[in-house]
Amino acid sequence: MSLLIVGTIAMDNIETPAGKVVDEIGGSAAYAALAASFAVPTAVVAIVGNDFPQETLDRLAARGVDLAGVKVGDGPSFRWSGRYHENLNNRDTLDTQLNVLTQFKPELPEKFRDVEHVFLGNIDPELQMSVLKQLRRRKLVACDTMNFWLDSARPALLRLVAEIDLLIVNDEEARQLSGEHNLVRAAHAIRKMGPKLLLIKRGEYGVLGFEQDSIFAMPAYPLEEVFDPTGAGDTFAGGCMGYLTKRGALTPGSLRRGIAQGSVMASLVVERFGMRRLWEVSAADIEARYMAFVRLTDFHSA
Amino acid sequence: MSLLIVGTIAMDNIETPAGKVVDEIGGSAAYAALAASFAVPTAVVAIVGNDFPQETLDRLAARGVDLAGVKVGDGPSFRWSGRYHENLNNRDTLDTQLNVLTQFKPELPEKFRDVEHVFLGNIDPELQMSVLKQLRRRKLVACDTMNFWLDSARPALLRLVAEIDLLIVNDEEARQLSGEHNLVRAAHAIRKMGPKLLLIKRGEYGVLGFEQDSIFAMPAYPLEEVFDPTGAGDTFAGGCMGYLTKRGALTPGSLRRGIAQGSVMASLVVERFGMRRLWEVSAADIEARYMAFVRLTDFHSA
Repeated sequence: MSLLIVGTIAMDNIETPAGKVVDEIGGSAAYAALAASFAVPTAVVAIVGNDFPQETLDRLAARGVDLAGVKVGDGPSFRWSGRYHENLNNRDTLDTQLNVLTQFKPELPEKFRDVEHVFLGNIDPELQMSVLKQLRRRKLVACDTMNFWLDSARPALLRLVAEIDLLIVNDEEARQLSGEHNLVRAAHAIRKMGPKLLLIKRGEYGVLGFEQDSIFAMPAYPLEEVFDPTGAGDTFAGGCMGYLTKRGALTPGSLRRGIAQGSVMASLVVERFGMRRLWEVSAADIEARYMAFVRLTDFHSA
Repeated sequence: MSLLIVGTIAMDNIETPAGKVVDEIGGSAAYAALAASFAVPTAVVAIVGNDFPQETLDRLAARGVDLAGVKVGDGPSFRWSGRYHENLNNRDTLDTQLNVLTQFKPELPEKFRDVEHVFLGNIDPELQMSVLKQLRRRKLVACDTMNFWLDSARPALLRLVAEIDLLIVNDEEARQLSGEHNLVRAAHAIRKMGPKLLLIKRGEYGVLGFEQDSIFAMPAYPLEEVFDPTGAGDTFAGGCMGYLTKRGALTPGSLRRGIAQGSVMASLVVERFGMRRLWEVSAADIEARYMAFVRLTDFHSA
C-alpha cells in the first residue's frame, strides 16, 4: 500500500502573532507527504526551483518519501508570503511568486501509475485531471481545491469533481461550490456532483465528514497556543489519506478514524512554524494526541 | 431533586429566513424551564405582564413546572423583537421593551430556598446575586450572562462569578470577560475568578466544557434547516442543568453528559419557532437525538 501525493512544494515567508520566519519549507505536497509518511510509504509528484535546499529533499527521502516524481525546474521555487491576523483565522497573502510552478506538468513515473490511493493537492484542476488520466488502478482519489479555482476554472473543476471519490474543501468553498449556505444541504448538493465522500474543514472548529447517510463532526483540538496555521489543511488531508491508504478498504468507521488521524496531525503541525513540529514528532506523540482527541470528544462512555 | 430557574419570561417578535412570528412566548426562564422539565421537577422565579397569556402558564404548570415564584406585574410583559440574518449566526435586535422587567425583584417563595440546584438566567447580576443570598443549601449554581452586563455592570458581575459553580457564556463573552482571545487561556483565566466549571457556547459550532484539567468539545448537530435560533442557549442551559440536577452529584462524566443533553434539547428547539418544538417533543424524540449525537461524534468505537 502506498499513497501518491500531487501538489506544490514551496518556500514560504510567514508572519504570525508568535513571530516571523523566511524561506520556510511549505506547499501542499510537502505538508501532506510528511504527515502521511507516518502511516504509509508516500510518493510525491511536484516541482521545485533550482534554489530549493537539497537537504530538505534528503530529509523527506530519509522519511521514506519517494521523490522520483519531483522535478527541479528552471528558475526559483514557488514562493508564498503571508501574514496572519491576531485571531489566526484570517490571513493576508502579501506576495505570491509562481516561478517554476508555471512549468508544472505532472508526469507520473511509470512505477507510480499503479498506485491505488491518491491525494491531489490544490493546483489547477486541469493538472489534477491530467494526473487522474495517468492512473491505471485508482481505488480512492481525494482532491483539495480553493476558491481561486471555483472562480476562475469552475467548468474544469466540476469535471474533476465528477471523477473523484473524496473532496476536501473548507466551509466557504463548500458554500461557493454548491450555492447553499447550510452545510448539510451544501454537502447533499456536492455529493450529487460526484464524490461519494466529502470533508468540510472549518478551521478552529474542526471538520465535518459526509458519507452515505452519515455525518461525522470532529472538533479541532483546543490548543493554548497556535503558533502557525500554515499547512494545517494539507497536513490534515495527508494524515487522513495516510490512514485510509493503510486500511486499504473503506469501511463505515474508517473515514471517521481517518478524519481523527488527520486532525491529530493538523493539531500537531500548528504548534511550531511551518513543518517543524512534523519533523520532530514521534509515534508516541501521535498516539498521545489521538487519545487526547478521544477524551476531548467522548461523553457516552465517559 | 428539583431545579430552580430564575430569569425572564417574554413575548417575542421574531423574523428568520424561514418566516415571522409575533407574540411568541420566550425568555430565558421559559426556554430553560421547559427544557429542564423533561428531566426533573422545575421551579421558576420570574415576572410576567398582565397581558401574558394564562394559557401558557397553565401549559407550563401541566408540564410540572412550579410557577409559585412567577409574579404578575403591573403593566405589559417584557418584549423583544429581532431579525436574523440569512446565516442565522447574526441577528439585529429591532426593539426591546423592558416593561414589567423593571419591577423584577426576585423573591424566592419559602419552599424554593432549600433547592440545591439553580440556574440563574441572564438578568442584572445584582438580581442574580440577590437570589444567591436567599439560598440556604446550594450545591450547584449555574449562571448565564451577556456582553451588556460585561460592559455596564462588570464589578457586580465579577462578584457574582466569584460565588457560582458553573458559568455559561458564549465565546465572545468569554474573551471579553477574560481579556484573552485564545479560548483555552480564557477558560483558565475565568476559572481563576471563581467557577470550577465553565461552558463556552459557540453557536453552530457547539460547546466547549472545562472542568479540572479536562476539556470537552461537543459539536452542534448539523441540521438541514434551522428555523429559529432564539432561545437555543437557554434551552441548552436548561437541558444541561436538568440532567445535572437529576444526577445529583457531579462526577467526571456527568458534566459531559449534561452538555450532551443540553445540546440535544437545543438542537430540537431550533427546528420550530420559539418553544414550539419543545411543547410537542417526546421522550423518544429526545433519546433518538441523543443517539444521533453519539453517532455524530464517535470515531473510536465506530
